[in-house]
Amino acid sequence: MIQSHICTIGDELLIGQITDSNAAFIAGELNKTGVMVTQIHSVGDRKEAIWKLLDESLQQADLLVLTGGLGPTRDDITKNTLAFYTGSSRFYRSEAQETHIVDIFEKRGRMLLEIDRKQADVPETCKVIENKLGTAPGMWFDYKGKVIVSLPGVPYEMEGIFPLVTQAIQHHFSTSLSPIIHQNIATFGIPESALAHKIADWERALPSELRLAYLPNPCSGVRLRLSCYDIQGGSQLIEQAINNLKPILGNSVYSLSDQSLAEVVGALLIQEEATVATAESCTGGKIAAMLTAQAGASAYYLGSILAYHNRIKEELLEVPADLLHQYGAVCSECVEAMAQGAKKRFGADFAVATSGIAGPSGGSLEKPVGTLWVAVATPQKCTAQKFVFSGNRLINIDRFAAAALNMLRLSILETTTYK
Amino acid sequence: MIQSHICTIGDELLIGQITDSNAAFIAGELNKTGVMVTQIHSVGDRKEAIWKLLDESLQQADLLVLTGGLGPTRDDITKNTLAFYTGSSRFYRSEAQETHIVDIFEKRGRMLLEIDRKQADVPETCKVIENKLGTAPGMWFDYKGKVIVSLPGVPYEMEGIFPLVTQAIQHHFSTSLSPIIHQNIATFGIPESALAHKIADWERALPSELRLAYLPNPCSGVRLRLSCYDIQGGSQLIEQAINNLKPILGNSVYSLSDQSLAEVVGALLIQEEATVATAESCTGGKIAAMLTAQAGASAYYLGSILAYHNRIKEELLEVPADLLHQYGAVCSECVEAMAQGAKKRFGADFAVATSGIAGPSGGSLEKPVGTLWVAVATPQKCTAQKFVFSGNRLINIDRFAAAALNMLRLSILETTTYK
Repeated sequence: MIQSHICTIGDELLIGQITDSNAAFIAGELNKTGVMVTQIHSVGDRKEAIWKLLDESLQQADLLVLTGGLGPTRDDITKNTLAFYTGSSRFYRSEAQETHIVDIFEKRGRMLLEIDRKQADVPETCKVIENKLGTAPGMWFDYKGKVIVSLPGVPYEMEGIFPLVTQAIQHHFSTSLSPIIHQNIATFGIPESALAHKIADWERALPSELRLAYLPNPCSGVRLRLSCYDIQGGSQLIEQAINNLKPILGNSVYSLSDQSLAEVVGALLIQEEATVATAESCTGGKIAAMLTAQAGASAYYLGSILAYHNRIKEELLEVPADLLHQYGAVCSECVEAMAQGAKKRFGADFAVATSGIAGPSGGSLEKPVGTLWVAVATPQKCTAQKFVFSGNRLINIDRFAAAALNMLRLSILETTTYK
Repeated sequence: MIQSHICTIGDELLIGQITDSNAAFIAGELNKTGVMVTQIHSVGDRKEAIWKLLDESLQQADLLVLTGGLGPTRDDITKNTLAFYTGSSRFYRSEAQETHIVDIFEKRGRMLLEIDRKQADVPETCKVIENKLGTAPGMWFDYKGKVIVSLPGVPYEMEGIFPLVTQAIQHHFSTSLSPIIHQNIATFGIPESALAHKIADWERALPSELRLAYLPNPCSGVRLRLSCYDIQGGSQLIEQAINNLKPILGNSVYSLSDQSLAEVVGALLIQEEATVATAESCTGGKIAAMLTAQAGASAYYLGSILAYHNRIKEELLEVPADLLHQYGAVCSECVEAMAQGAKKRFGADFAVATSGIAGPSGGSLEKPVGTLWVAVATPQKCTAQKFVFSGNRLINIDRFAAAALNMLRLSILETTTYK
């Protein structure tokens, strides 16, 4: 199998200023292309560190994909280091990239500086991979029988270029690429150890060619992953395993195709030609943001009343003032009234409402931080459910929103006739 | 200086199933403690890969912090590998950790399995670092004059344990720790190359002990970072540099203390004892979610009307139907009406409204995907501004929300007398 290392470059990674999302993206794309990633590294903007990494990785891997350090400012040294490493100090200007740079500046109505134009200069030892979304082009080096690819560090530019990298890899390595299959099974609502217990017999019966992994996430549930490297008939083995698993897990499985909870809910609503509205308190717009992050959400999503203040719950969602005074906002009565209020106000088929205590303050013995009430109104009924989580404010908000979306998902699945 | 490597373990990292957020957190914490991180690695759940990494990293670094591979399922092999590596196959059960495990299962009302209880077993070569938030404890190994720390991979558990790790590092390395200072200067609204041009004289005049880096982000602007390693008087040098920079950049700087735009807006509103409401269309709850992610947001944030559907803009925000029919929803008139409608409906001091085209569909020649109109209503006036970005749907939504928050920030700064 063709093996690859990935290296992300930048002092900001080593001091924790940013989270490295590039490595995961590149690893996913390389896997799809049939390249196995065996190690990921991050080093700083230092010539010696990059040089040493090039030495070590090219000994172990056939391909090394680098990102970062291609910016126009003085702290960016990747391009010069690669030039020297590959044995050249001469640069040429890529006319194609220069055109993109001029275009970008014109579109944004900004003054073009010589420092920007110089971004189109690359070492004579490389081929240019054009970058239409930014100023720094990617570079492809054939070096002593190995390949080095250097890409800009800005994620959306790197992602925009990557299809060209994939093409070049397919062309260069062609028949050496191997099929790698990963099948994810996204579950919600069963903790990792209970899940392992529940599927123990199934796991024992898996064919030895399949590798199973558990990936728990407090917000998106436990994902199971079946992997299969470089064998014939792998996809049939996986299909059979999935078919055996389905009756064991039922509706706890929400996706077999890497969809998020929000994507699954969106697809269900489109399928049922139904609409949804939200009434959020403690989740503060998170559910709405998750739903509207999906392209085409306007087909089923009508809107939200974000009733952070109790007065808004009364005025816009018609939650009775008595109810709020008697029970407070964190109770089944309140979320049910909110869901019904939103359903009516927006004229939606479904509505989901949340009220809870995300923290860090506002908790009590009876209703500790982490308490959430969710209600879902369907065409037939309105039900509420209580959840108790433990986490900090941000984790709680994410878990609250996920629990609410999952309850909405189950309610849509239950509702077979409506409208 | 004490040097550290970080290694995150898990096949899911090498196939791009998840983004590694642990490395950034750990790197940030180690820097604060005076430990310099020189390299970050990710390897798979394979004994040989972990073993080789331990060999190589312990040659180069004084400290190695590992995360991941401590779960209860069969694919988790870090604990056994560390036991063998440090020369022991004997385990002992940590009573303290066992108590936490029992507590966690009782609180959640779940059945405790032996597989869960066994999580409290650790190699006799390590000291336990208790984990109250999850079942897998951290482990501290003193090994041949170096230190290996192994932590669970679930981010909020790892983050919850980390204060204990910091204490142990301070105790163990004590006087060998060095001051490392990073000062971030968060700017918004000036592209990287223009920023570099604008501050070129200031950059040239920087003392040689300070290192400057540019970190552009399409959503949060360009962050400048001044760093200073292991010298006396570093903080005075940085303070002086910042004082010289302030008059050059003015209100383009939104934070010198790593605050997000939403945090800065929240702090300004608290300072002015003012409230804000939002009326979001294309941003779909993102601005609300950013504002309410801040603890204490209820002091200034009243709520939102998320008018995804035009009918809601009319009914709840009192945007005139004529206006919508004549100009559509993406124009200055509509966002101004939305902002004023929200300000009135919520009785807020400020309101911010957005309407635009996030994509992928819905664009036209006149109003391409990436077009955003933002309006901010203040106690005195209501102004609208147009932005045009280029990105995919998710990037556009994030940029839209950031542009709106920044416009709100500038409007609050401008408003000196109100209420």
